[in-house]
Amino acid sequence: MSENQEITSTLTPAAGNGLLHRRLFLTGSAASLGAGALGLITAQPVVAAPPPETPEWMKTPGAPLSSYGQRSRFEEGVQRHPARPAPGTTGAGVTRTPLERLNGMITPSALHFERHHSGVPDIDPAQHRLLIHGLVERPLIFTMDALHRYPMVSRIQFLECSGNSRTIIAETPQTGTCGQMHGLVSCTEWTGIPLSVLLEEAGVAPQARWLLVEGADAAAMTRSVPLAKALDDALLAIYQNGEALRPGQGYPVRLFLPGWEGNISVKWLRRIEVTREPMMSREETSKYTDLMPDGRALMFTFEMGVKSLITSPSPGLAMQGPGLYELSGIAWSGAGRVARVEVSVDGGASWADAALNAPVLSKALTRFRIPWRWDGGPALIMSRATDEAGTTQPTREALIAQKGTRFAYHINGIEGWQVGANNEITNVHV
Amino acid sequence: MSENQEITSTLTPAAGNGLLHRRLFLTGSAASLGAGALGLITAQPVVAAPPPETPEWMKTPGAPLSSYGQRSRFEEGVQRHPARPAPGTTGAGVTRTPLERLNGMITPSALHFERHHSGVPDIDPAQHRLLIHGLVERPLIFTMDALHRYPMVSRIQFLECSGNSRTIIAETPQTGTCGQMHGLVSCTEWTGIPLSVLLEEAGVAPQARWLLVEGADAAAMTRSVPLAKALDDALLAIYQNGEALRPGQGYPVRLFLPGWEGNISVKWLRRIEVTREPMMSREETSKYTDLMPDGRALMFTFEMGVKSLITSPSPGLAMQGPGLYELSGIAWSGAGRVARVEVSVDGGASWADAALNAPVLSKALTRFRIPWRWDGGPALIMSRATDEAGTTQPTREALIAQKGTRFAYHINGIEGWQVGANNEITNVHV
Repeated sequence: MSENQEITSTLTPAAGNGLLHRRLFLTGSAASLGAGALGLITAQPVVAAPPPETPEWMKTPGAPLSSYGQRSRFEEGVQRHPARPAPGTTGAGVTRTPLERLNGMITPSALHFERHHSGVPDIDPAQHRLLIHGLVERPLIFTMDALHRYPMVSRIQFLECSGNSRTIIAETPQTGTCGQMHGLVSCTEWTGIPLSVLLEEAGVAPQARWLLVEGADAAAMTRSVPLAKALDDALLAIYQNGEALRPGQGYPVRLFLPGWEGNISVKWLRRIEVTREPMMSREETSKYTDLMPDGRALMFTFEMGVKSLITSPSPGLAMQGPGLYELSGIAWSGAGRVARVEVSVDGGASWADAALNAPVLSKALTRFRIPWRWDGGPALIMSRATDEAGTTQPTREALIAQKGTRFAYHINGIEGWQVGANNEITNVHV
Repeated sequence: MSENQEITSTLTPAAGNGLLHRRLFLTGSAASLGAGALGLITAQPVVAAPPPETPEWMKTPGAPLSSYGQRSRFEEGVQRHPARPAPGTTGAGVTRTPLERLNGMITPSALHFERHHSGVPDIDPAQHRLLIHGLVERPLIFTMDALHRYPMVSRIQFLECSGNSRTIIAETPQTGTCGQMHGLVSCTEWTGIPLSVLLEEAGVAPQARWLLVEGADAAAMTRSVPLAKALDDALLAIYQNGEALRPGQGYPVRLFLPGWEGNISVKWLRRIEVTREPMMSREETSKYTDLMPDGRALMFTFEMGVKSLITSPSPGLAMQGPGLYELSGIAWSGAGRVARVEVSVDGGASWADAALNAPVLSKALTRFRIPWRWDGGPALIMSRATDEAGTTQPTREALIAQKGTRFAYHINGIEGWQVGANNEITNVHV
């Protein structure tokens, strides 16, 4: 059976307000109904005799060969959304991935979100060193040449800043695109050395339980990592999407802890100290803790929750009038694979299962899609994901009931987009 | 069980001349032997008191936030290898992926190989049109806005130029890096519309068997595509690695035929004519045919064969003296998934299975890896892949015995690298 042919044919609505079966458009279904059964979706019938007029760019040879490809000048507006840097700094802040302009599972490295605490250092890999010391039998210093000889693994996995999506818990719905509100999440192929291999080289002492990891930026970004995670699936990432990490992502080597809040995947990694206790650094005491309604703060809440977003349609992408559309979005969970994504276009009154694009990988973004016949009237669209652990993304209301509104991290409530009869799409609380 | 823990522990050689078990370095194996059992691989013991000297880049804030990320200046030498353009042209030629500098499965879009016949057109997507006509009930013209509303799928799949690896059948071994000799293969995530959906919209006539597909470059690149492939897994690709296709890859829309020779995945797609017979265009008669020893030429040999390459070590990447290394490479097949990759470091006298990096996807590059304890002496290293159809990559000798040396396409013979005692690596015929 071909990749396009695993189909059921149905025009029966899958949920209220025009949601259709997730497999409707895949090969075999429309064909079995006979051409035209679906009606023209968006194309225009030919009115002039083909072929159409020869465009200008076919009349002269195009641009020459190039050693490193660039985007089209017509796509240069697709940019990361920068937040204003912290007062008095140029390099402490975030840039967000323009989720609404992307499709698929992979985020191009140039558009991967970034969070810096004192800018992006310009590191010479020939001068860079990684030290492993502390509670080890044998402290070691690694050059990049040395690291390149170690065994590596590659994994496609998401990274999300734990401060993503604060707009969800704002008192009133905020304005902005999907990326401007939720773009502190991206997904790339990471290739690197299992941290466990290097820890075995150094020989971890029996009483060790934590690591201190430190970056080579001017902030000397520092976090404490449980040894169990380091021995599980932690990587020292050296490549991203096939090529060397970029400076904004930690060149020449970063820590990568799959499924955990981005802040702990320390970039420009220069030092790992094996310890008995966590070091209680700034980034795990003053920041990156979750303030609860009773005034206590949760520490070391590493894992990112199950979450989904509809990226198209979404605010800033206008509808084109009534007719058939594909609803598309991303889902993920720090606990493993996404098991299910449901979509509603009637404000939660009814839900239909979206198709999940294979392969569905552990701790990776999963692209979901479902066809929708929009009647042109107001529609409230939303998605909710469930992961393989059985956890379902909470509503905003449930999230706030549990955690209040004073926390600033790990915000995974359901987002809602209001589609208006004027073709515009706005952010609403649901 | 964690991703790092599916391990067997063994130091027993897996094949002659130092090849070790493919899972030796994954978590659990070395640990169970006790620290130090493997010996230090490449790291240096600490001789001065930690922490090491503070590098210059930690003493001042780094670069500010940016809207589109760039590579490190230390990586700018990693470029596509351009061939000289055809005489009298600036844009007819190839650029090859620097395979020896990449790792993982994904090729960054900027380093994806390219083959152009009259340069890269600068297409305004608002002006671009796609026409479907010929043996259809209803000829249609699509704008890019219209195409964006159709259902899409995403797949990670390779693309290989059928002219790749001609160095294999040269009389004497050629010099160059792995990418310079074999870099007309790349692998990315393609997102687009199943072509079958648009053909259903137009209504294909019962007598139709082929399509003529035409690009909007100055060469009006034209190929004939069997209707069966178009209805199977053909995509109209609009995104690559998450973002809009780049101009060098066919912006704003290209045909993508998984597993087939690159030339037929026509870029800048502007016209699809549904026909009864193939059109016998230049690119399937004068070119892209396989000349056999008896003087006949095979036409329409679309599918790319099963193949593999060791990318590290490889020519241009010097060894660092005796000790432990990871052998790493890529394998693929136009027929589906890679089932097995075997590696030899004694010129084919003995072979060991390499580890295949998950997920192993159909018609995608698969990264393979195996550890090797090099004794510093001469070693002849090579790899051979077998796909899920049971086909094994042929030796150069077997390939030439079957097809002669006058063919110029579909060259998938086994490549050999000679590792010398001087740490240098050269290309040899095996």
